[in-house]
Amino acid sequence: MNINNVMRAEVLVHALPYIKEYYGKTVVIKYGGNAMVDEKLKESVATDVVLMKYVGINPIIVHGGGLDITKIMKKMKKDVQFVQGLRITDKETMELVKMVLVGKVNKEIVTLINRHGRIAVGVSGDDAELIVARKFILPEVDLGYVGEVEKINPKILEDLVGDGFTPVIASVGVGDDGQSYNINADLVAAEIASTLKADKLIFLTDVDGLYKDFTDKSSLISELSLKDCDELLKSNQLDKGMLPKVKGCVTALEGDVKKAHILNGTIPHSLLLEIFTDEGIGTMITTSR
Amino acid sequence: MNINNVMRAEVLVHALPYIKEYYGKTVVIKYGGNAMVDEKLKESVATDVVLMKYVGINPIIVHGGGLDITKIMKKMKKDVQFVQGLRITDKETMELVKMVLVGKVNKEIVTLINRHGRIAVGVSGDDAELIVARKFILPEVDLGYVGEVEKINPKILEDLVGDGFTPVIASVGVGDDGQSYNINADLVAAEIASTLKADKLIFLTDVDGLYKDFTDKSSLISELSLKDCDELLKSNQLDKGMLPKVKGCVTALEGDVKKAHILNGTIPHSLLLEIFTDEGIGTMITTSR
Amino acid sequence: MNINNVMRAEVLVHALPYIKEYYGKTVVIKYGGNAMVDEKLKESVATDVVLMKYVGINPIIVHGGGLDITKIMKKMKKDVQFVQGLRITDKETMELVKMVLVGKVNKEIVTLINRHGRIAVGVSGDDAELIVARKFILPEVDLGYVGEVEKINPKILEDLVGDGFTPVIASVGVGDDGQSYNINADLVAAEIASTLKADKLIFLTDVDGLYKDFTDKSSLISELSLKDCDELLKSNQLDKGMLPKVKGCVTALEGDVKKAHILNGTIPHSLLLEIFTDEGIGTMITTSR
Amino acid sequence: MNINNVMRAEVLVHALPYIKEYYGKTVVIKYGGNAMVDEKLKESVATDVVLMKYVGINPIIVHGGGLDITKIMKKMKKDVQFVQGLRITDKETMELVKMVLVGKVNKEIVTLINRHGRIAVGVSGDDAELIVARKFILPEVDLGYVGEVEKINPKILEDLVGDGFTPVIASVGVGDDGQSYNINADLVAAEIASTLKADKLIFLTDVDGLYKDFTDKSSLISELSLKDCDELLKSNQLDKGMLPKVKGCVTALEGDVKKAHILNGTIPHSLLLEIFTDEGIGTMITTSR
Amino acid sequence: MNINNVMRAEVLVHALPYIKEYYGKTVVIKYGGNAMVDEKLKESVATDVVLMKYVGINPIIVHGGGLDITKIMKKMKKDVQFVQGLRITDKETMELVKMVLVGKVNKEIVTLINRHGRIAVGVSGDDAELIVARKFILPEVDLGYVGEVEKINPKILEDLVGDGFTPVIASVGVGDDGQSYNINADLVAAEIASTLKADKLIFLTDVDGLYKDFTDKSSLISELSLKDCDELLKSNQLDKGMLPKVKGCVTALEGDVKKAHILNGTIPHSLLLEIFTDEGIGTMITTSR
Amino acid sequence: MNINNVMRAEVLVHALPYIKEYYGKTVVIKYGGNAMVDEKLKESVATDVVLMKYVGINPIIVHGGGLDITKIMKKMKKDVQFVQGLRITDKETMELVKMVLVGKVNKEIVTLINRHGRIAVGVSGDDAELIVARKFILPEVDLGYVGEVEKINPKILEDLVGDGFTPVIASVGVGDDGQSYNINADLVAAEIASTLKADKLIFLTDVDGLYKDFTDKSSLISELSLKDCDELLKSNQLDKGMLPKVKGCVTALEGDVKKAHILNGTIPHSLLLEIFTDEGIGTMITTSR
Repeated sequence: MNINNVMRAEVLVHALPYIKEYYGKTVVIKYGGNAMVDEKLKESVATDVVLMKYVGINPIIVHGGGLDITKIMKKMKKDVQFVQGLRITDKETMELVKMVLVGKVNKEIVTLINRHGRIAVGVSGDDAELIVARKFILPEVDLGYVGEVEKINPKILEDLVGDGFTPVIASVGVGDDGQSYNINADLVAAEIASTLKADKLIFLTDVDGLYKDFTDKSSLISELSLKDCDELLKSNQLDKGMLPKVKGCVTALEGDVKKAHILNGTIPHSLLLEIFTDEGIGTMITTSR
Repeated sequence: MNINNVMRAEVLVHALPYIKEYYGKTVVIKYGGNAMVDEKLKESVATDVVLMKYVGINPIIVHGGGLDITKIMKKMKKDVQFVQGLRITDKETMELVKMVLVGKVNKEIVTLINRHGRIAVGVSGDDAELIVARKFILPEVDLGYVGEVEKINPKILEDLVGDGFTPVIASVGVGDDGQSYNINADLVAAEIASTLKADKLIFLTDVDGLYKDFTDKSSLISELSLKDCDELLKSNQLDKGMLPKVKGCVTALEGDVKKAHILNGTIPHSLLLEIFTDEGIGTMITTSR
Repeated sequence: MNINNVMRAEVLVHALPYIKEYYGKTVVIKYGGNAMVDEKLKESVATDVVLMKYVGINPIIVHGGGLDITKIMKKMKKDVQFVQGLRITDKETMELVKMVLVGKVNKEIVTLINRHGRIAVGVSGDDAELIVARKFILPEVDLGYVGEVEKINPKILEDLVGDGFTPVIASVGVGDDGQSYNINADLVAAEIASTLKADKLIFLTDVDGLYKDFTDKSSLISELSLKDCDELLKSNQLDKGMLPKVKGCVTALEGDVKKAHILNGTIPHSLLLEIFTDEGIGTMITTSR
Repeated sequence: MNINNVMRAEVLVHALPYIKEYYGKTVVIKYGGNAMVDEKLKESVATDVVLMKYVGINPIIVHGGGLDITKIMKKMKKDVQFVQGLRITDKETMELVKMVLVGKVNKEIVTLINRHGRIAVGVSGDDAELIVARKFILPEVDLGYVGEVEKINPKILEDLVGDGFTPVIASVGVGDDGQSYNINADLVAAEIASTLKADKLIFLTDVDGLYKDFTDKSSLISELSLKDCDELLKSNQLDKGMLPKVKGCVTALEGDVKKAHILNGTIPHSLLLEIFTDEGIGTMITTSR
Repeated sequence: MNINNVMRAEVLVHALPYIKEYYGKTVVIKYGGNAMVDEKLKESVATDVVLMKYVGINPIIVHGGGLDITKIMKKMKKDVQFVQGLRITDKETMELVKMVLVGKVNKEIVTLINRHGRIAVGVSGDDAELIVARKFILPEVDLGYVGEVEKINPKILEDLVGDGFTPVIASVGVGDDGQSYNINADLVAAEIASTLKADKLIFLTDVDGLYKDFTDKSSLISELSLKDCDELLKSNQLDKGMLPKVKGCVTALEGDVKKAHILNGTIPHSLLLEIFTDEGIGTMITTSR
Repeated sequence: MNINNVMRAEVLVHALPYIKEYYGKTVVIKYGGNAMVDEKLKESVATDVVLMKYVGINPIIVHGGGLDITKIMKKMKKDVQFVQGLRITDKETMELVKMVLVGKVNKEIVTLINRHGRIAVGVSGDDAELIVARKFILPEVDLGYVGEVEKINPKILEDLVGDGFTPVIASVGVGDDGQSYNINADLVAAEIASTLKADKLIFLTDVDGLYKDFTDKSSLISELSLKDCDELLKSNQLDKGMLPKVKGCVTALEGDVKKAHILNGTIPHSLLLEIFTDEGIGTMITTSR
C-alpha cells in the first residue's frame, strides 16, 4: 500500500465540502498576466478549469492578450501607443488585435484546455453577437476602435454551458454596424458575470491582491466590502492595471454576482486554492456595503 | 501560501484523468466486513461514496448484515445455525433478519452517507419488487427462508439514479407470494450489477484480495481472468466467505459488467484507492478468458 | 348476460364523476388502527390504494406502528412506559422502534400493496433526509428520543410520485446529528400533506369520526370548520388518541391542504367510500373558519 | 353506512385487475348500429369511453352513419341505391355523405362524449390526410365515389392521444386529387387498428356475435381463430353486414392487433362488459391459426 | 442563367426581414367572402397559409359559410330569414348550418390547404369544447339557436399548433347542454385571437378596408386607432357586414392582440401582401387610443 | 395595389415546394473564391444563408482563405511557396494562417451573416476538437504543417444547430499533440458533410461547374454520376483548384451525402438559385454509379 495514495485519497475527501458548495455554480474567470505566458502556469490553469468542470462547476473564461498584440505590432513595425492605459487602435491595428486575440490567443487557450478534457469552445464578441459594443469616448483624444460594452447577448454562453462546454471568450466586441471594437477584458468579464448572475468573478493577476499599502507586502487585504471599493476608486491610488479590475468587481457585485476575487495567477493552481480551501487566496470583495 | 494547500491542489489535478474515465459510469459496491463495523471505516466509505457521486460516478450500494443479525438473535435467545455458510432461517428468524437489515443496518448506512451529502435512499427487495426471490433448495437440509434471486426489477434503481440519488440496497428478496427471503448479499450485488450492466462491481472484504497461496501474503493475485475464476471455483479451495464473492464476479462478468474487484475494505478510502490510482488495490477480475 | 356484470358496469360508470374530480390530486393517508392489524382490512386498504393510483390519484401513505413496537419490547422484556400518550424512548428502544417500523411494518405494507400492483416504495425519515426532526421537549420529563418535525425535504416524495410510485412512509425522523427520533405518525402525515400542498389528508382510525358527545353514537359530526377545531382543541375534551389527529387536521388545513378527514378504517374500503361517494364517510374538516 | 356504497366499493376493487391489464393500451372501437341510434345506448357508450380514458386506456372511435345518410337523401328526394351492400355515390351524394358523417354524426358523438369529460376531438379522413383513399373498382358497375383505404397517416391520432384526447373518426377518405370517398367504416376501423398496432379492435353491432348457425341463438361462437375466420369468409355464408366486420377482424389481426371482438352494442355498457369481465361478451377472434 | 430565376432569388431575399419579424408569431385569419368562393382565390389563400406555416408563422383559420348555408336551405325549400344581419335559426336550420359549416365548408378548406402541405386539421366548437356558447338574446325577436361566445377552451388549438398543425375552425359553438349554436365567425375569430393573445387578427373581406366616405374609393383609411374605432361604432354608419368585423377588432385589441387588419381578400395573395410588405394592404387598427 | 408586390407574393408562393423539400435538411456549403472577396457577393451569400435558416434549412459554412493569408505573408515579407497546390507551412506561417483564417476571415463571415440575423457562430478545428488532423505526407517534400482530416467530432456542430445557430467553420485542424494543421477547406467540407450525413454539399467556385471540354463554355456538365467522377479523377485532366472539390464530392457521396454541387459563386444568390429552382445551377453529382 503506497502511503502517497492514501494521502491522495484523504485530500480528495477533504475537497468534498467545497465540491458540494460549488456544485452547479457559475464562475467567470478573467484569465491574464503571467498565467497566460508561463508554460507551466498555462498548464496549471487548463487543468484547474477542466477539474472544475468535472466536479460540477461551470467555469467561463474571458481573456485579453495585450502582450501578444504589442509583440506582433512591433514585428510589423506598427507604432504602439497608449493613453490612460488604453491602446490607440486604428483600423489596421484593430484587425491585428482581432487576429491575435481570436486567431491566436483564444485558440491556444482552447487547445490547451481540450488536451485535458474536450470541453472548451472559443467565442468572440462577434459570435451570435455575444458582446455588442460602442465606441468609447475620451474627451481629450480619439482612441479609434476602443469600445465599451453596450449589451451582452448571453444565449450562446447559456447554450454552450447547457451542452456541456466551457466557453473561452476573446474580449472583442461588435458594433451595430458590424465594426469590431477592442474592449478591456476585465470589464468584459465583469459584464458577462453580471449578465449571467454568476456566483463568482475571479481576476487572475500577477500580484497577490489588493494592499492597504502597496509597498508593504504584509498589508494584503483579504476581504473588502463594496463600500470599501467605492472609496478605493475615489482615492485615485489604484495603478492603471488594477483600476479596471476593481471597477469590474463593483460592476459584477452590483449586478448580483455574489463574490469577486483578485488572485495571484502566478501561484500554481491558484483557482483551486481559492475554491477548495477555506481561507482562499488573494482579495475577496463582497456586497456588504 | 500554505504548502499543504498547494499539495492538495496537485492531488486534485492528479485525480482528473480518473474522474474523466469514470464520469457517468455505474459502480455497484458490495459493502460488508469490518468496513461496516469500524466507526472510522464507516465514515471513510460514506465520504468515498458521496465523493464518487459528486464527481459524476453512480455508486450503488448493496449490503448484508450477518453480524448484527446474530447479535440480536443471541440477545433474543434464538438458536443460530449455519449449513454450508447459509443461515437456517425459520419464520421468526426471517422477521428478525428483515428488521435488522432493513430497519437498522440499511438506515445506518443511509444516515451516515446523508451526513456527507443528502443523496442516499434505502431500498430492500420489497420496494417496487426490486429483488424477486425463490426458495433456495439444498437436497440435504431445509434452510427455511433462504432464497436466491429469480429476477431483478431495476426500474426503482434507474429512477432513483436518474433523480440524483444513490440507492442503498438491503439484500432481502420477496417471493411471488409476498414471502420474504434472506439472500446472500454478494450474489444480490452481482445480479444487480449484471442487470444494470454496471461498469464495475466491487466487493469490500477484510482481506487484501485473492491469493495464489492464502498462507503466503506475498502471493496476492492482482489480476485474474474469468477463465482463472472458473478453475478457482472448480478447485474447491476457496473458503466459504470468498466463495460467493468469486461466484458473484463470474455472474457479473458474464452479464456484461466490465470489471469485478475484491478489495480490502479495512484500508481507509479503499474505494478511492481503487478508482483514483493506476495500480488500484486488491484483485481485479476481467472478462478475458 | 350476467345480471351481476351489468350492475358492475353501472357502478363503474357511477364512479366516473369522482374519478374526474380527483384526477391528478394528491391524497395523504395516515394508515393506522385496526386497519393495520386485521388481515382483511389490510387487503382492503392495499387494493384501495392501488385502485386510487390506477385511476389517476396520487396516494401517499404514512404509518406508525405502536402495537408492534410494544409487542416486541415485551418479548425482549423491555419496560414499556408512556407519558401523555408518548412512549418514553431510550437509545435501545429507539433502535427497536426503527427496526419494527422500518424493517417490519413498512415493508409489510409495501409488500401487500405491491401484490395488487408494483407501485409501493417504502421510505423513512432517513431516506434523502425526508423527515428532519428535533427532540420534543416536555418540561416535566425527559422522553428520550421522542421528536417533532423540524422540516420535510419533499424531493424524494415528488420524484417517486413523478416516477409512478406510491411512497409508504415510516414516521421516524432524523436529527441534525444523524440521531433517529420517534415521531407521532399523525403529525408527520399532517406536515407532509402541508409541505406537498395535498388536496386531502385522511386519518384512518377505529371510530366513525368526531362526536358532539362521544357517548352518543348518533352525534357524529359529519363536517367541521377549522374554527370549530380550534375550539375543540381548547376544550380539552379530546381523548389522547384523537388529539394529534385533530391537531394534524389544523396543521394541514393551515398549510393549504383543502380538506382533512377522520374515517373509520375498520369499515372495508373506507378510502373508496370517502372518495367515490357524495356523502363520504366520517368527519370532514374544511378551512372555512 | 349505506349497503349500496359498500357494494360499489367492492365492484371498483373487483375492476382493478382489468384496469391494470389494459393500462396504456389502445382500443379501436367501431361504433355503429342501434348503439348509435338509441338515446340511452348513446349515453352508455359515451360514459364507457370516458371511463376507459380515465382509467388509463386509449379508446379511439371510428363511425359510419348509413341510416342518417339515407334519411337525409330521402328528404332531399335523392335516389338511394345499393350494389353488394355498397351505396352508389354520385358527386352530389358524396357531398351529402360527408355533410352528414362529418357535420352531424361525428359532432353528435363528440358532443355527447364531452358532456361526460372534455376529451373528444372529431376528425375525418381529410384532417392531416388521415385516411388516404382510392376509388373502389367493381368490374360490373361504377359505384361512383366509393373508396377503399390506400394509406393511414396516423400522426394526427398519435398527437391527439399524446395530448390527452380521444379521437372520433368519420369514415370519409381523401384521394390524391383532393376528392372525397365514402369508405366502409368497418374497414377503416380495421386499417386504423392495424396501423396503430392497437391491442384490441371492437365492433359494436346489433347481434350478440357470430353464430355457428345463425338461426340457432344458442350457437353463439365465443372464440374464433384467424384460420376459422378465413374459412368463414370462404364459406360465403356471412350476411352483407357481417362480412366487412369479419374481413376487418382478419385485416387487424394480420396487422398485429392482438384481439378483435364482435359485440352486441344494444346491451348497455357492452364495452365495459367486454373489458372488465373475464368472460367478456360476444365473439372474440385471436391470431392462433 | 435565367433572368427570372435571379429575380426570384432577390424577391426571396427581400422577404427575409418580414420572415424574421413574424417568426414564431400567431396570426388568426378570419376567412370569408369571395376568397372562399372563387377557385383561384381559394388556391391563393391555401398557398399563403402553407407558406406562412413553413416560414415559421402560426396561422389559425376561422371561417363561417353563410352563402353555402343559404344555398342548401333553398334547395331544401327552407325559409331563409335574417334579423339585423343574423339568421333566424330553428332546430332543423341549426342542424343544416352545422352540416354545411363543419361537413362541407370546413373540410373543403382543410383539403385544399393539405394539397399544398399536410398541415391542416379542421375543428369546430364541439371538439374538446373549443367554443362554449350561450343563446344570443335580442329583446324584440327570438333568433333561435343563434349564440355568442361564452368561453374559448384553447387547449386543442395550442396542442395542434404545438404538434405542427394549422387549425381550421368552423364557427359553431356548443352550449352547456350540448346544444349547438350558430355564431358570427368574425366574433369567434376575435375571441380566439384574444384568448391566444395572437400577434395579428386579419379579416378577409370583399372591400379594400374601411373608408372615411364609402362612396369615395380614394378615402381608404390605412391606419386607425382603437379610439377611432369606438367612434366609428358609435356613429352607426357601418354596414351590417362590416359591423361585426370592427367590433371584432376592438375585442381583439382590448384582449392584447397587437394589430387587427381588414383586407380585401379578392386580391390574390392578400395575406402575403399584408405580411411581407412594409406598406401592407387594407386598414390596420392598433391599440393607440 | 403595387404590381411589384403582387409579383413578389407570387414568387414566394412559387418557392413553397422547394421550401417543403428542404425543410429540416442539412446543407454544407464550402464558401470560397470571389464570393468571399466581392462586397456585393459577400452580402448575397450572407442573406442567402440567413434565408435558408429561416425557412427551416440547416446551412453549415466551411471556409478557407488562401488569398488573405498570402496577402498578409507578403506584408510580413514571408516567402510564399506552393507544392502541388499546397502551401508550404512552417511554424511561423502556421501561426499566421490560423490568425488570418480564425481571427479575420471567419469572424468577417460571422459578423456579416449576423447583420442579417443573429445566427452565426464561428468555430475552428480546435473548438471541442471539431477537426482532428494528422500531418499530410508527400514523399518528395516536407510540407510542414499541412494536414489531413483524421476525425470529425461533430458534437459541437450538432449542439449549435440544435440551439438554433449556423456554424461557420475555419479549416484549421488540431493534432493529437495540440499542434495546428492547415487543411484544404474543400476536403474539410466534404468530411463534415459525410460525418453529418448532410443532404447536400455545395462548393462555391468562380466557374460555372465542370466542363466536358474546359475551353468550350457550351460543354458545361449539369449532372454527373459518382462513376463519371472516378473516371474524371483518373483522367488527370482536372486543374489543381477543381481537383480537391471533385475528390470532396466523391468523399461526401460515398459517405451518404445525397447530392454534391459545384456552383459559380460569382452569380448573385447562387445558393438560392440552386435550392429554389428545378433546373438548379452548376454541376450536380449524384450517387448513381
